[in-house]
Amino acid sequence: MNHLSDREWMAYRTKNKDRGRMLIACPDQPGIVAAVSQFLFSQGANIVQSDQYTTDPETGNFFMRVEFDVVDLEERIEELRRRFATVANDFGMDWSIIEAKRRKRMAIFVSKEDHCLLELLWQWKSGQLHADIAMVISNHTDLQELVEPFQIPFYHVPVSKERKEQAEAEQLALTSGKVDVIVLARYMQILSPRFLQDYPQQIINIHHSFLPAFVGAKPYEQAYKRGVKLIGATAHYVTEELDAGPIIEQDVQRVTHQHDAEDLKQLGRQIERTVLARAVGWHLQDKVLVYQNKTIVFP
Amino acid sequence: MNHLSDREWMAYRTKNKDRGRMLIACPDQPGIVAAVSQFLFSQGANIVQSDQYTTDPETGNFFMRVEFDVVDLEERIEELRRRFATVANDFGMDWSIIEAKRRKRMAIFVSKEDHCLLELLWQWKSGQLHADIAMVISNHTDLQELVEPFQIPFYHVPVSKERKEQAEAEQLALTSGKVDVIVLARYMQILSPRFLQDYPQQIINIHHSFLPAFVGAKPYEQAYKRGVKLIGATAHYVTEELDAGPIIEQDVQRVTHQHDAEDLKQLGRQIERTVLARAVGWHLQDKVLVYQNKTIVFP
Amino acid sequence: MNHLSDREWMAYRTKNKDRGRMLIACPDQPGIVAAVSQFLFSQGANIVQSDQYTTDPETGNFFMRVEFDVVDLEERIEELRRRFATVANDFGMDWSIIEAKRRKRMAIFVSKEDHCLLELLWQWKSGQLHADIAMVISNHTDLQELVEPFQIPFYHVPVSKERKEQAEAEQLALTSGKVDVIVLARYMQILSPRFLQDYPQQIINIHHSFLPAFVGAKPYEQAYKRGVKLIGATAHYVTEELDAGPIIEQDVQRVTHQHDAEDLKQLGRQIERTVLARAVGWHLQDKVLVYQNKTIVFP
Amino acid sequence: MNHLSDREWMAYRTKNKDRGRMLIACPDQPGIVAAVSQFLFSQGANIVQSDQYTTDPETGNFFMRVEFDVVDLEERIEELRRRFATVANDFGMDWSIIEAKRRKRMAIFVSKEDHCLLELLWQWKSGQLHADIAMVISNHTDLQELVEPFQIPFYHVPVSKERKEQAEAEQLALTSGKVDVIVLARYMQILSPRFLQDYPQQIINIHHSFLPAFVGAKPYEQAYKRGVKLIGATAHYVTEELDAGPIIEQDVQRVTHQHDAEDLKQLGRQIERTVLARAVGWHLQDKVLVYQNKTIVFP
Repeated sequence: MNHLSDREWMAYRTKNKDRGRMLIACPDQPGIVAAVSQFLFSQGANIVQSDQYTTDPETGNFFMRVEFDVVDLEERIEELRRRFATVANDFGMDWSIIEAKRRKRMAIFVSKEDHCLLELLWQWKSGQLHADIAMVISNHTDLQELVEPFQIPFYHVPVSKERKEQAEAEQLALTSGKVDVIVLARYMQILSPRFLQDYPQQIINIHHSFLPAFVGAKPYEQAYKRGVKLIGATAHYVTEELDAGPIIEQDVQRVTHQHDAEDLKQLGRQIERTVLARAVGWHLQDKVLVYQNKTIVFP
Repeated sequence: MNHLSDREWMAYRTKNKDRGRMLIACPDQPGIVAAVSQFLFSQGANIVQSDQYTTDPETGNFFMRVEFDVVDLEERIEELRRRFATVANDFGMDWSIIEAKRRKRMAIFVSKEDHCLLELLWQWKSGQLHADIAMVISNHTDLQELVEPFQIPFYHVPVSKERKEQAEAEQLALTSGKVDVIVLARYMQILSPRFLQDYPQQIINIHHSFLPAFVGAKPYEQAYKRGVKLIGATAHYVTEELDAGPIIEQDVQRVTHQHDAEDLKQLGRQIERTVLARAVGWHLQDKVLVYQNKTIVFP
Repeated sequence: MNHLSDREWMAYRTKNKDRGRMLIACPDQPGIVAAVSQFLFSQGANIVQSDQYTTDPETGNFFMRVEFDVVDLEERIEELRRRFATVANDFGMDWSIIEAKRRKRMAIFVSKEDHCLLELLWQWKSGQLHADIAMVISNHTDLQELVEPFQIPFYHVPVSKERKEQAEAEQLALTSGKVDVIVLARYMQILSPRFLQDYPQQIINIHHSFLPAFVGAKPYEQAYKRGVKLIGATAHYVTEELDAGPIIEQDVQRVTHQHDAEDLKQLGRQIERTVLARAVGWHLQDKVLVYQNKTIVFP
Repeated sequence: MNHLSDREWMAYRTKNKDRGRMLIACPDQPGIVAAVSQFLFSQGANIVQSDQYTTDPETGNFFMRVEFDVVDLEERIEELRRRFATVANDFGMDWSIIEAKRRKRMAIFVSKEDHCLLELLWQWKSGQLHADIAMVISNHTDLQELVEPFQIPFYHVPVSKERKEQAEAEQLALTSGKVDVIVLARYMQILSPRFLQDYPQQIINIHHSFLPAFVGAKPYEQAYKRGVKLIGATAHYVTEELDAGPIIEQDVQRVTHQHDAEDLKQLGRQIERTVLARAVGWHLQDKVLVYQNKTIVFP
């Protein structure tokens, strides 16, 4: 399921063979960076990139993402984890150590609109999205034909009011143990809290955004009537509160009075696919950390 | 009160001496453009720029802005108006004919923040805002010193709950007959419907904007907590419904998790002054038409 | 070769059935707009959109694009053209009258890179590009498989130093009489003056752009070394002077020191496809006029 | 010479009282981050922000900027420097430790155009530029009046072909020992290599930028003739090679065929002042490192 050319794939593997990532979140206090970097140095690792952020140096929370190279990472990673546990314990860290070459397994949920799906498939095929796309799941069959040439399994799971619960059970059966991240690429169904539980901060959604926001149906119609000069899109993690999860990325596009509601929708699609692909790309490279209801993005 | 150099001022006068503008709004029907352009041709006028927009060619409303040159405009303008009245009558037009060289008289209302005021003064002084700034009115004295070097009258009209009505009476006494457009450059008071009546679609306000919108107090604090990736500003005409008047211009600026609420405020100020100055500039050149609750901008 | 749904296609046809476009270029003088609009009115046409531009109202050149609706356009268009010829003659106009529903026939030339091709195919398939894609021509076979699902003829015309002339002859044989516009979607060959002659202002190219510009090989490498903060792309009509034809559209993307030359290339591809698709879209709707070495775009 | 309100000034001082910055450049090798962070921890310092970049983890150069808090920084800074020298020596570092509360002393060089000067003065007055503006130096007297209300010394140093050397000597006499950074805010003179020597990577210039670049006189005229769709500005450090020093910041603005050469100039001024102020702001906070002919910006 790898569509890079042999040359590109080899280059990627070689570049990332011994590349690891460390993600850390803990209460801030002096000495964290020293302890982490000292640990990595003692293990023979070389820090390639390091980003950090503290909500407040006195009493806040500290977040860190480190990329490092260490010889024979694959063989040594369990040992690294075991050894780092002591350090992590001292500082009360939430943490993980990840091999950069292990690509996340992704499921894409769609309904009938193809623009977000196509952008993800294209970026994936051109080697820009570092994921294995395990499957596409849809409540309709409209996009099946589009997915076929990419040789990705397409599953049709119809959703209706009556069989919503059953549909989610089927979806979970398909993804369970096979999927690390779910992208809602204009999937026009609301997922239940039960479903979300299985993928905390692992489900990414895209929706249109305006200044000001328009509540209720037909937002593009409303935006047209108000004569907005910008339309936008927001990619966010899905939480129980609808469309109010942590924002990963946003962008806007300039419009004028000459654009009718249909034009706005079409331009909206362009922003949606760009913003979603950017957010997914960052997530796949572990560049997005979540704290309370906001994200820290180290792009 | 003209701060352009002599050379620039002469160039502006010469360029605009015989330049007229015609603004039209009417129900759409065939023949409007033909009638208007035929009229101008018959009067010896040359169309320099023409913009139009129809909400719907069948049953919609039609809007037009024409810039034209005609010899001795100043002497002939009353005659032009008289003659055009017949054409206008046939099509049920709202219309006006304006000399481009007559600059609108502008009042700027401020409170304590200087960024929007300064931007307007700078753009005016550098010849980019085609207005005569008749006065600055403030409910505080903080910005008096700043205005002085520009040799523009500064009036302090204190506003409090008790004397709000009286304050507005004083403001109207100052502006009445002397001011064509009022710019609220971070003026932190709400104007009464009574006040708005005297300046319909002639009062421009600026306020911050976010995706999503944040209702209630301390919006930058809220935006920070939600981790928005864009902050913006909206310039609009003031109507009775607070901050919901026709939007003239909007823009945004990218931010990250590293910006605290104070940073967001500071960046917000930069967008506010840019967006407000752009909106005011268009208004001064009669480039903004209002229809229902939206604007048609011919920039 | 129409990929819109039946419903969409019907909507498009209905909306554009009687929609005409008139394009005009001539020396500026008073009375042009009056004559044109009077003519259209006399023929029972209703002006839907009208844009104009003059390089100088006194001695300059005048450009106009009018969209109009007239009953039974298809049956009447020859008559309209015949009648308008008299008006056009009076003003020394270059002009054309076009049916909006007749879509231009487009050929896409590619080499090995797929990003621009894919964007055009996607926008076309989703109904945003109003063209009939007659063929894809490539000097390589790499992209053949990609084109197949779209059911568009793919022709492989190898190009080498020895057979360059022959290759162009083959290309012209393929396009002759079947193609109105050629899009070079990262086609890595230079077309001869002979070839360009057959498609004046009908060949659109895309190339990367930087501030400052970098001359010579490996521009992304150079841009990386100079630490540019913006990379961009320019879509332009192809003329004999390489990459110096009239610019249709440009855009940029922000980059940082963290992006290596490879990242810049990847980001560059994103801008290239966006800018090219925008330029092609405007061309297909006759929104781009050329004067000397610049374009007038009525978007 | 501090124009913040008392409250703001106190807040700034308090916030930055014990805030230090460490800047490092050295050949990359494992253990740098560990050594630096271990050192800071051992001194009781808490890392508040840390940014780093390596041109290549194997054989490249490593750059780091650390913000830290340590009690009684002012009293302890010499001791910190002395102690860190050992660490720095081990890794062959170029380095410095700076008190955040010490503001750089800035001279602004201008000629006749005021837009960049005014933007700097306004941002400084509103507390956004953390500098002491020691003086404004001009080869003309046009802007003297503008500077006066800000109570900043204004020096008129005429420059002509004959007295260029003498003029530079006078300028150096004025700035010597009193100025850390020189901003060329549309200063229309070329500084000699001799002058640049005294302020390596401490002189910031702004100039217009286009895609493509236009060589020779009247670039806005050329850009207009070519019909560019974007105009831009570049802020860079001044080096002996004219306008080819390390780029700090760039930005662009969209334009259309309707903008004449004069409009482009006016829009160009808007971008110039924004880009210059942003670049100066980063420099003042030690956020810009220079390596070969490019910058590393940690914004």
